[in-house]
Amino acid sequence: MSVLAAQAVDPELARLRDSIDNFDAALIHLLAERFRCTQRVGELKARKGIPPSDPDREARQVARLRKLAVDAKLDPDFAEKFLAFVVKEVIRHHQTIAANHAPSVEEQRKS
Amino acid sequence: MSVLAAQAVDPELARLRDSIDNFDAALIHLLAERFRCTQRVGELKARKGIPPSDPDREARQVARLRKLAVDAKLDPDFAEKFLAFVVKEVIRHHQTIAANHAPSVEEQRKS
Repeated sequence: MSVLAAQAVDPELARLRDSIDNFDAALIHLLAERFRCTQRVGELKARKGIPPSDPDREARQVARLRKLAVDAKLDPDFAEKFLAFVVKEVIRHHQTIAANHAPSVEEQRKS
Repeated sequence: MSVLAAQAVDPELARLRDSIDNFDAALIHLLAERFRCTQRVGELKARKGIPPSDPDREARQVARLRKLAVDAKLDPDFAEKFLAFVVKEVIRHHQTIAANHAPSVEEQRKS
């Protein structure tokens, strides 16, 4: 049997892949909901003039997620890299929101 | 009120952060469970001599996750980057598993 045929018919591989696909769908939906929250955080921060980045909050999040990862038997270094990956995207969104909230050059001239 | 004090007391920010923390805990636990599945996939592949990487499967996953992301109002480019980030870690695990399953130089000499 070729390698491709083995992959096509192996029932254990197919079953595991079905689970992975379900986890991925759940992850995508959770990430979408997480970004809805951070979008609102970004708008709130822009409205109140709070800087987009918050190193203290991020340090607390890293420590907490590393601990949760250990409890879940996930590599804590991976959990930290994952948070950094998500936060990088969030900060990109927040900077866009802040830029849209900043007074334009025209508005600054008027004031 | 200083920026720090504003962050400390703003109830809407605190509420949103509580939600983000809950989503992060859920994400970490789902990722842990996803890696448990891919760990088993890696062991299965190593046992059956199936290559760790599978570009066809990955292309199907990308297309599916991009569609799920659009439905969930998440940037499909981000969803694709997220999958690449996770798969990169999975392939790293699988290569380690494959290396551990490969016959040692000593075993190869004996055969």
